[in-house]
Amino acid sequence: MSYNLLKGKRGLIFGALNEMSIAWQVAERAHEEGATIVLTNAPAAMRLGEIHELAKKCNTIAIPADATNLTDLENVIVKGMEQVGGKFDFILHSIGMSPNVRKSIPYDNINYDYYLKTLDISALSFHKLLQVARKHDAINEWGSVVALSYVAAQRTLFGYNDMADAKAALESIARSFGYIYGTEKKVRINTISQSPTITTAGSGVKGIGSLIDFTDRMSPLGNASALECADYCISLFSDLTRKVTMQNLFHDGGFSNMGMSERAMMQYDKSFDEGQ
Amino acid sequence: MSYNLLKGKRGLIFGALNEMSIAWQVAERAHEEGATIVLTNAPAAMRLGEIHELAKKCNTIAIPADATNLTDLENVIVKGMEQVGGKFDFILHSIGMSPNVRKSIPYDNINYDYYLKTLDISALSFHKLLQVARKHDAINEWGSVVALSYVAAQRTLFGYNDMADAKAALESIARSFGYIYGTEKKVRINTISQSPTITTAGSGVKGIGSLIDFTDRMSPLGNASALECADYCISLFSDLTRKVTMQNLFHDGGFSNMGMSERAMMQYDKSFDEGQ
Amino acid sequence: MSYNLLKGKRGLIFGALNEMSIAWQVAERAHEEGATIVLTNAPAAMRLGEIHELAKKCNTIAIPADATNLTDLENVIVKGMEQVGGKFDFILHSIGMSPNVRKSIPYDNINYDYYLKTLDISALSFHKLLQVARKHDAINEWGSVVALSYVAAQRTLFGYNDMADAKAALESIARSFGYIYGTEKKVRINTISQSPTITTAGSGVKGIGSLIDFTDRMSPLGNASALECADYCISLFSDLTRKVTMQNLFHDGGFSNMGMSERAMMQYDKSFDEGQ
Amino acid sequence: MSYNLLKGKRGLIFGALNEMSIAWQVAERAHEEGATIVLTNAPAAMRLGEIHELAKKCNTIAIPADATNLTDLENVIVKGMEQVGGKFDFILHSIGMSPNVRKSIPYDNINYDYYLKTLDISALSFHKLLQVARKHDAINEWGSVVALSYVAAQRTLFGYNDMADAKAALESIARSFGYIYGTEKKVRINTISQSPTITTAGSGVKGIGSLIDFTDRMSPLGNASALECADYCISLFSDLTRKVTMQNLFHDGGFSNMGMSERAMMQYDKSFDEGQ
Repeated sequence: MSYNLLKGKRGLIFGALNEMSIAWQVAERAHEEGATIVLTNAPAAMRLGEIHELAKKCNTIAIPADATNLTDLENVIVKGMEQVGGKFDFILHSIGMSPNVRKSIPYDNINYDYYLKTLDISALSFHKLLQVARKHDAINEWGSVVALSYVAAQRTLFGYNDMADAKAALESIARSFGYIYGTEKKVRINTISQSPTITTAGSGVKGIGSLIDFTDRMSPLGNASALECADYCISLFSDLTRKVTMQNLFHDGGFSNMGMSERAMMQYDKSFDEGQ
Repeated sequence: MSYNLLKGKRGLIFGALNEMSIAWQVAERAHEEGATIVLTNAPAAMRLGEIHELAKKCNTIAIPADATNLTDLENVIVKGMEQVGGKFDFILHSIGMSPNVRKSIPYDNINYDYYLKTLDISALSFHKLLQVARKHDAINEWGSVVALSYVAAQRTLFGYNDMADAKAALESIARSFGYIYGTEKKVRINTISQSPTITTAGSGVKGIGSLIDFTDRMSPLGNASALECADYCISLFSDLTRKVTMQNLFHDGGFSNMGMSERAMMQYDKSFDEGQ
Repeated sequence: MSYNLLKGKRGLIFGALNEMSIAWQVAERAHEEGATIVLTNAPAAMRLGEIHELAKKCNTIAIPADATNLTDLENVIVKGMEQVGGKFDFILHSIGMSPNVRKSIPYDNINYDYYLKTLDISALSFHKLLQVARKHDAINEWGSVVALSYVAAQRTLFGYNDMADAKAALESIARSFGYIYGTEKKVRINTISQSPTITTAGSGVKGIGSLIDFTDRMSPLGNASALECADYCISLFSDLTRKVTMQNLFHDGGFSNMGMSERAMMQYDKSFDEGQ
Repeated sequence: MSYNLLKGKRGLIFGALNEMSIAWQVAERAHEEGATIVLTNAPAAMRLGEIHELAKKCNTIAIPADATNLTDLENVIVKGMEQVGGKFDFILHSIGMSPNVRKSIPYDNINYDYYLKTLDISALSFHKLLQVARKHDAINEWGSVVALSYVAAQRTLFGYNDMADAKAALESIARSFGYIYGTEKKVRINTISQSPTITTAGSGVKGIGSLIDFTDRMSPLGNASALECADYCISLFSDLTRKVTMQNLFHDGGFSNMGMSERAMMQYDKSFDEGQ
């Protein structure tokens, strides 16, 4: 199903690894909606993933870029504009990684070099992308930039570790740069705070399975899938949402504003049954 | 410009008075996007406004209803479904009025009968609408309900009076009923917190002109217009936003997350110029 | 243990029913801290409770007042000032009741007369108290007013019913009136959002036992008790917090900013054990 | 005036430069309230400031420490405990610096090495302090840790630059570590979001004078002073606030919850007077 919502628009999409990736689904949906897109991911991720398949599907190419590296970002922006034939109308930032999480280093015994890497990869990369884009005047007026975040930026979830702090910084960057880019060029910048999603990136977080069950029972509409998130991104890239900026938008079936659902409480209550 | 985003969908729209009304713009846009709609407003408002013109434009009728009256609400829902030929897929609640504001009664010398009326008209009417709709099973699964709110629900603006408390209650009702309707029927319920907008309703608030200048200078993208708000409503009624619920969504050019813009501060600074 | 934090201060305390009441603990602690206080509660509550014992302990009297009744409020404020010998330096509002909750009427089949009563008792009473106090110039400069709220104002908890909307309105009133009273008289107005507490009022809410277990396991410091809440009130009545106003202050062991604790998740996980 | 609120308690205070510093005022007030304290600041700041005078006043010493350096932090914690004669009951973190702000590098042309330094000094130093303290089991049960923050963590203020992102990360660290330290040792961790304050650190931010005028007129109680902030810190270090944790507490005369005050709007309106 397509509405041609992005007809004539050009987009740059960071972070598609495989079909489970939200960025992958966004790329497919953007293509369906008539956009001309270009893909990018870290060189290592491009070797692991099937991004070239996706590129083929979407009649485009994938350009490798380390999103923490300014030269790489310049390259992907310049070459990306060549590929799509003009300035970008939308950009998706779906990038996050914590060496501390990967290596199971707990938050209270953290490695600070890794911590700075978590921040650089998961938050500063968004600033770098925006700063480089702005220097190259690479985004059209009324363009739309979205980064993916998580409710851990507001509320502590055990095991999410330094990624919580990185997401808080990421959302702050969306506000700080959203002010500047909006004032100058009418570019809007938002974050989507997505349900926990089973992706290659998400699967490293401790206890993620139980958490996903809990958030699903807590959310009146259940957890949001990667495809549903892609649909939401499309709406934010479209011209229907031009005055939404500097916001963190929860896309989570209602989880963020729930205190306790009957469904989750009934499950919790079972834990006290005899024999437990 | 139409995307057929609401093709095959049926909608009920409260609160169109005249062309300045957000609800009016929503009706026009929903019609353009392929929806079959029905209009309603208070009997007195229908006499003042030009709603029948709008109805004609949108190939539909306008049914009078006092949104605080359960019988009227039942009537508009039952007759409305007959008009559109089935259950609703979306509903807009754009209703608010404070007798205290109208009569310039200040917040610290308030009339409590009027206060309860403010709450009944501006907040409880939303609950009543939802309760009546649910009893008549009048909303399809994955339907979308939107009510219009204002940042005064979070932050005090002098002169906004008891409407601030009413908007806070309105947003709470969206959450409380959103939980129930979401769990049962996958219906999502959100509020849009819109920029101050020059409408017949908004124009009664004291000092609204200066405020609108200030919020425009504070907002990186400027204030959002009624038409832009209508576009945003369309995105929330569409299938692209199915997992967004119980949220208060700021549509305000970034105002809600601004502390101080350079543009507003430069204007403010002029107030200290010599001769002042 | 006393610090003489409220030495020379005069206070008015609404809502002490029995020893379990937060207001009861506040009264005792305020007395210990050197304040001269006066008590009040609804006539019916005064008959049920042991408020006169408390009054005796605190060398004062209890004046009956229906907090929704302006004449009663004027009486308690005028007589209360006589009793304590001057204007008030602090006031506690610990009042909340929902006829819908009492009669187990669900939120989606609500009785609207009762709903308006919930709002009148649990939210408007706070406005009325402030409006009457202001008319009688009954609060000293740098006075402090606190009302008790609950996280349901922000996040939906099944079964909390229309009290959620009332608490949202209550917190809004604290902001709206806090602006006026602060500007004019330097009076600060805040709400405390307290852990679920086993009081006579709280015990009517459905599933409260399980909920209290869950919030205790979610909160790093565990649920806050009535006595701990009283201590917090004392700090907000003292001169140490003069510039805190219009805030909703969470006193909940950290619950409000938790997404998931390991302790709660371990308990939740047990629900999936074999035999369940 | 002293209440002996901190009698028998031991404290560690980071960031006192001179009398304008909030940390300086906190040290004086903590000493007055009966605490035994020890001071620390960066070696360079200790040379500039008059911290040894303060130490003398408070019967203690000042230990130099670069708060980004783990060895320095270990030293100040170990030597600090020796000085005060036991584990700490409270710690104040009043540390923030942005090389980008200092060198007037704008946010959209930022230097990323400096950006990481901003984060390291203004946010990670708080994590480091907590991690080192925990390793040395240096905080007593029911101890209280406070870091100073600013509303820029939530709302963009032009010119505040990368400090906004650092404060967002700082507040996230308070939540993330607050969960761990609370669960394990009942230690509470909060941030105070203080009014803009004329300190040596604050005075570097562009346009700070006009901003302070504006926030003062916006806040019903006016801006909060450094001394008032110190009083608030005392209340948070005392035993009256034991169940408050993981919170960001606004101490700002009401600014954070204001949308527009009459006083600020009247001033703003003057900017449109003839001759402007």
